[in-house]
Amino acid sequence: MNKMSKASQELDPISDMSIAQSSRRDFFRKAVVYSASAVAATSVLSPVKLNATDDPAIVEEAPWGVKLGEPITKNYYGMPSPYEHNNIRRGTPILASGDIYASITMCPIHEQEGIITPNGLFFNRCHGGVAEVDPNEYRLMIHGLVEKPLVLTLDELKRYPSESRIHFIECPANGGPEWRGPQFNKIQFTKGMMSQAEWTGVSLKVLLADVGVKPEAKWMLAEGSDNSEMGRTVPIEKVFDDAMVVWAQNGEALRPEQGYPVRLLLPGWEGNLQIKWLKRLEFSKEPFYAKEETAKYTVLTPSGKAIQHFYPLEVNSIITSPCPEKPWTDLKKGDLVEIQGLAWSGQGTIKAVDISFDGGKNWVEASLKGLVLPKAWTRFSYMYRYEGKPLLLSSRAVDDSGHIQPTIDQEIEAVGIEAVYHRNAICTWEVTKKGEVNNVHIRKS
Amino acid sequence: MNKMSKASQELDPISDMSIAQSSRRDFFRKAVVYSASAVAATSVLSPVKLNATDDPAIVEEAPWGVKLGEPITKNYYGMPSPYEHNNIRRGTPILASGDIYASITMCPIHEQEGIITPNGLFFNRCHGGVAEVDPNEYRLMIHGLVEKPLVLTLDELKRYPSESRIHFIECPANGGPEWRGPQFNKIQFTKGMMSQAEWTGVSLKVLLADVGVKPEAKWMLAEGSDNSEMGRTVPIEKVFDDAMVVWAQNGEALRPEQGYPVRLLLPGWEGNLQIKWLKRLEFSKEPFYAKEETAKYTVLTPSGKAIQHFYPLEVNSIITSPCPEKPWTDLKKGDLVEIQGLAWSGQGTIKAVDISFDGGKNWVEASLKGLVLPKAWTRFSYMYRYEGKPLLLSSRAVDDSGHIQPTIDQEIEAVGIEAVYHRNAICTWEVTKKGEVNNVHIRKS
Repeated sequence: MNKMSKASQELDPISDMSIAQSSRRDFFRKAVVYSASAVAATSVLSPVKLNATDDPAIVEEAPWGVKLGEPITKNYYGMPSPYEHNNIRRGTPILASGDIYASITMCPIHEQEGIITPNGLFFNRCHGGVAEVDPNEYRLMIHGLVEKPLVLTLDELKRYPSESRIHFIECPANGGPEWRGPQFNKIQFTKGMMSQAEWTGVSLKVLLADVGVKPEAKWMLAEGSDNSEMGRTVPIEKVFDDAMVVWAQNGEALRPEQGYPVRLLLPGWEGNLQIKWLKRLEFSKEPFYAKEETAKYTVLTPSGKAIQHFYPLEVNSIITSPCPEKPWTDLKKGDLVEIQGLAWSGQGTIKAVDISFDGGKNWVEASLKGLVLPKAWTRFSYMYRYEGKPLLLSSRAVDDSGHIQPTIDQEIEAVGIEAVYHRNAICTWEVTKKGEVNNVHIRKS
Repeated sequence: MNKMSKASQELDPISDMSIAQSSRRDFFRKAVVYSASAVAATSVLSPVKLNATDDPAIVEEAPWGVKLGEPITKNYYGMPSPYEHNNIRRGTPILASGDIYASITMCPIHEQEGIITPNGLFFNRCHGGVAEVDPNEYRLMIHGLVEKPLVLTLDELKRYPSESRIHFIECPANGGPEWRGPQFNKIQFTKGMMSQAEWTGVSLKVLLADVGVKPEAKWMLAEGSDNSEMGRTVPIEKVFDDAMVVWAQNGEALRPEQGYPVRLLLPGWEGNLQIKWLKRLEFSKEPFYAKEETAKYTVLTPSGKAIQHFYPLEVNSIITSPCPEKPWTDLKKGDLVEIQGLAWSGQGTIKAVDISFDGGKNWVEASLKGLVLPKAWTRFSYMYRYEGKPLLLSSRAVDDSGHIQPTIDQEIEAVGIEAVYHRNAICTWEVTKKGEVNNVHIRKS
């Protein structure tokens, strides 16, 4: 066991990652299933302990069993156990440009269980620090090409009929540094720019019925009230498909770093489009080409042309166990172990995930488990009998829009290595003979 | 608008509530749906603000827009906005017996959005304070009528294939003080002894395959390692139906007050059975009649006999908006407003919820919205045109096991007023002409 200490937090330095970075209608309200999970029919543990009389942790009374615990009066809101102090968001100096206000902290997805990220671990990207908004002074303005411009207080906004949906949010730069080869030997830094929550708010379809968007309006500018005035333009089709204005995350108010009190939610689309501390929505005939959608968040292709409007995130997956932070160094030959991971797509619902043990030559089908929802993290699982030999472990997801993850070669051929954003190539972990796990790139060329 | 201050927390005193409180096989893995929600076709707001040039919050720059926000380096784990300081768990002196170690803090379900309760707001009941368990010293023992007794470390336990499921946990004393008439004019105190989370752990079916439970075993004792040695006995049918041993809650380790590092999960059954800081599972032919299942958690009926083994929680519902903490005093005649609430059943999946405006004489069907899952909170909704007249607002849920919520009269006739536990009678809010909301009991007798 990796000894867990109750020591005060030992944090990685955090710093800025200067991330410069086809809408398919897929309505949310369709049948979803809890899929069948991989359940081992055979023994997981080898050997089973028959009598543990030599284990003081069993034969002696635990210290916490012989004294009263803390009264819950000390715990009105609460925090995780101090032993969990390493399960935190992290930045990395490698991604730093020295600006702590425009930075990113990544989600410890190797510690993530299920498909809900607790609010304290949800990844965070800011462009001008975390705005501290007074909800009493908060206003949302809706204007431009509309019949009736509208200004709403927070209370007025919350009077609209609400909806709650589970969706991931991912930065399009997730894995971006990997375009030029393996950069990090940590899953938290290669794939931690994403998290998932249950969001509650009002569908823009419903809200905009009170405003009357004019037929000539083709684009919507969403602008934040924070210091960076973060702004992005959204095509009208997405606005009337499944866009929402949300005020709650996992049952409570949005956290300050997630845009308290109100953010835009565009299920399955780039995280930076989902404007936080939302100030206004303006409708127009043309895109706005805001600051953050010209210099940043475009993709230069080998042809010399850039992809400028690049919104939905592609089908993707990553094995979260094992991973560099969760190696198999404690396993013995013959042990049964669960290979687990997350798959997601901004273009639909995950249909299947395959796993390869030889870096993509041969594939076996993993089980999807738990809730399988559109534009949402879906957990996959494969029970494996550990053989103590080196492996090249890869996962490859398919969604119901017909997309499949490309190889690294395929993706580079399509968009080159200047892409930075939207990396969804198949990821591979090298498992060494000792069970250590490393981030490697499998390429033919 | 109710002005929200950033003041330091003004807390209610907290104290002990000396809460003293037919398994139907309903496997979890079946199709679930996101149900259709109530969407208003007509305008929610009256009147719409056409030009808000007199509103300084719109025409002047917000203070948080003209300075840099806090860098996220200050926010490794994070907390809600300081303006949300009143959205906390609360106890009440009315339920106090002076013992702060055996107490309960209730969930602010009127502030709850969606169906996931954030871990910091999950209701909490302890019998000997919050045990602070060292995960390195943690052991789970499985013994008694089994082929191979087993002692597991936390790492060993987590090697089993995991599952994640969304379920509520409710104290059987939820609403218990109400048996003798309305006691609290707050929903947090009448129905706040429940919350819901996504739980991750191993199914007992899977874990016990390694132990081999003997055919003569009919009961399982679950015992906590906390100071109170909280123990309860579980019928073997439930053990092999959907019982789990869980280590995570909404994606992170269980919070200390929820039993870190491991608790028992018995979907839909009394909260006190779902033993926290779980130490051992012992199998036997007979029930154990542990301390907390003789004096407490039994129900005396009018016949003089007590219901001793009383496990699944009955179909239930409550309107969370409006409620005493969320009145309609700001509404104007003609305003469209959403009536919302939560329905749940420990015996199946919510099938329908009806709403009455006249205290149960006439009923209309509400919409279910969001995820509709077995043994889980299900949100219901009804769009209502406010008329400014007094109402008696009730909700009544039906589950797919064929159960329906009883009236107060029906429930008292069945189990008397000494019952304390398992109260699932229809609840009613009185809405006054001014829009104030009060907890009232509708009875014929």
